[in-house]
Amino acid sequence: MREVAILGIGQTVVDEQWNKSLKEIGGEAAFAALEDAGLQRAEALFVGNMLSPLVSGQNQLGTFFADWIGMWSRESVKIEAACGSGAAAFRAGLMAVASGEVETALVVGVEKMTDKAGHDVTAALATAADADYEVEQGVSFVSLNALVMRRYMYEFGWKHADFAPFSINAHANAVHNPFARLHDLITLEQFEKSSMVATPINLLDASPVGDGAAAAVIVPAEKVRGFAGRPKVTVAGSAAATDTMAVHSRKDPMFLSAAYHSSRRAYEMAGIGPQDIDVFELHDAFSIMTALSLEACGFAERGQGPRLGLDNEIRVAGRIPVCTRGGLKARGHPVGATGMYQIVEVVQQLRGECGKTQVDGARIGMAQNIGGSGATILTHILRATSD
Amino acid sequence: MREVAILGIGQTVVDEQWNKSLKEIGGEAAFAALEDAGLQRAEALFVGNMLSPLVSGQNQLGTFFADWIGMWSRESVKIEAACGSGAAAFRAGLMAVASGEVETALVVGVEKMTDKAGHDVTAALATAADADYEVEQGVSFVSLNALVMRRYMYEFGWKHADFAPFSINAHANAVHNPFARLHDLITLEQFEKSSMVATPINLLDASPVGDGAAAAVIVPAEKVRGFAGRPKVTVAGSAAATDTMAVHSRKDPMFLSAAYHSSRRAYEMAGIGPQDIDVFELHDAFSIMTALSLEACGFAERGQGPRLGLDNEIRVAGRIPVCTRGGLKARGHPVGATGMYQIVEVVQQLRGECGKTQVDGARIGMAQNIGGSGATILTHILRATSD
Repeated sequence: MREVAILGIGQTVVDEQWNKSLKEIGGEAAFAALEDAGLQRAEALFVGNMLSPLVSGQNQLGTFFADWIGMWSRESVKIEAACGSGAAAFRAGLMAVASGEVETALVVGVEKMTDKAGHDVTAALATAADADYEVEQGVSFVSLNALVMRRYMYEFGWKHADFAPFSINAHANAVHNPFARLHDLITLEQFEKSSMVATPINLLDASPVGDGAAAAVIVPAEKVRGFAGRPKVTVAGSAAATDTMAVHSRKDPMFLSAAYHSSRRAYEMAGIGPQDIDVFELHDAFSIMTALSLEACGFAERGQGPRLGLDNEIRVAGRIPVCTRGGLKARGHPVGATGMYQIVEVVQQLRGECGKTQVDGARIGMAQNIGGSGATILTHILRATSD
Repeated sequence: MREVAILGIGQTVVDEQWNKSLKEIGGEAAFAALEDAGLQRAEALFVGNMLSPLVSGQNQLGTFFADWIGMWSRESVKIEAACGSGAAAFRAGLMAVASGEVETALVVGVEKMTDKAGHDVTAALATAADADYEVEQGVSFVSLNALVMRRYMYEFGWKHADFAPFSINAHANAVHNPFARLHDLITLEQFEKSSMVATPINLLDASPVGDGAAAAVIVPAEKVRGFAGRPKVTVAGSAAATDTMAVHSRKDPMFLSAAYHSSRRAYEMAGIGPQDIDVFELHDAFSIMTALSLEACGFAERGQGPRLGLDNEIRVAGRIPVCTRGGLKARGHPVGATGMYQIVEVVQQLRGECGKTQVDGARIGMAQNIGGSGATILTHILRATSD
């Protein structure tokens, strides 16, 4: 595979963007990434999105956006893998460039969730689960995660407050990210007293959805040179893996086997191990997922994920900084866009553009995006080089 | 790009498969293709589908099918480009293998349309058009095509009966295809007297939707050898192109510019021209589209597509045989699956497996799949070799 690099990045704020359409939100991120890359257009467009058919009545988003940003006669396609759509689109763009078929790929993750009422969005999000065997039983996405979290607490002896550091860290970092949805610090007391959503998951365990888009331009690595203050960022590892659709089909619902497999393949491709990762943007849709991701990716023993939070190891100055721009918890979770936000944020870290949440000397960053309750998991490892 | 070959193909009948679920239909084609390839599993799964979120309440079809067919821990993703989803998934699989990231890719195009009532499906199909500027005006997909056909007849002086040979040919060929939805010969008189759908498009100008799935296994070409009675089938050309989403935004709504661009790029990649194509599976969703595709791909002058039908040049023994297995018109149009049916049918022709509709000595075949009213168009050229 020929090596690829990320030449440009762009993002919009994550928020309830009532005054902007799907088209405008995705276009804003796309144009920002192209401008950052110094390009007018790309040769191919890969759009990651989950909900537009259900929420906006719009399919064929590849060409929909190609049209809007003036990329007629070029290639375009939409990729969907539930909340993993963003990273799945990134990997499709990556393979297109790696294959030699495409010289410049623009990847846009976009989601417009406020075109429908909240209960419709909850129903739309449930299409990520197994329609016949999970959704028909009345389970929602948050309740699936609640079942896993309750079992995890029972098996490994954690109490709810032990998950607080994950959310506190995410909120603390988001304060310094102008694109984040939430900008308020939270305390342990607030975490414990927050409204219940689906026991044991309360409002501060859960990530807020929102409208947003993030984008990146991928090119062959040999065409990029780093320059003063802006290193070249290459894709050192990329892998996807799947698990069963339904949580109840898994031998061990508390182990993210797709995170394990995709991270191991990405490490192998990059020739590194978890100890080499300077920053990790993980998929903290719910606080339990932070623990499970850290364990599956080799940063903690089974059942010991919360320990990293309690020991402050996940903070910007810690051993494995996570959610440095706020994570899903506080930057927000515009579902099909989230994977691209993670990529963009890792690039920002490797470029040293993160101000008060900059990880000192970050050279290798990892992004992990999850579709469904751990059903589709993509892991990307990015590396800053100075050549 | 490393050259790739198609090692196995599979398909289900196109029909109203009331007794089978989305899962079962896609799985049937997937298993058939794997069996044909002599494999138990593939390394990665690419699913082309348009309507499952709207019709079956199911997203994340990549992992949904990976789970069903036992491809856990492997890679899987869904690709959507409206009715062009099948070929778009094929191209994504192709690039994954071409990049060297994947050694065996299984591509499945699948659509289950009978889970909802007809008017719901019509509304779901309209999500291929521009939601804000077309669908909001009340236009349906067939009426968009009717506007184009009416204008074309006016501009170039054709009458409705001049399009009859396209449908008559498709029906005649489908009689010999056990996977086709329709198996009845039609006459010019029937064509002229058929019920009106949206003037000038009547029932026999339009393709029937249906449930169905078709699949193929893609591998590096160097790993395949042709053998007696079954040549090696390689992908000689692959290209995608886009046009504006809305038909009214085009300078010339009667010219499929995305068909022009994608076919030219595919010809160039294959080092051939239209005169070298032995068989052409085109996207005859409506009879007008047959004329427009033939013109944009270089088989007829502008406005002269119907002449090829009237002169019998599109028949199996003609200059450019089209719809040799029935086309969308009579094999049926399970929208997100159609592009994969076309690929499978071209492979059948190159293998010489088409019985009474076999094109003698077919060595080079082309498949063209269209998403929206010409908005996304993918062209693939396959070649039979004996090495």
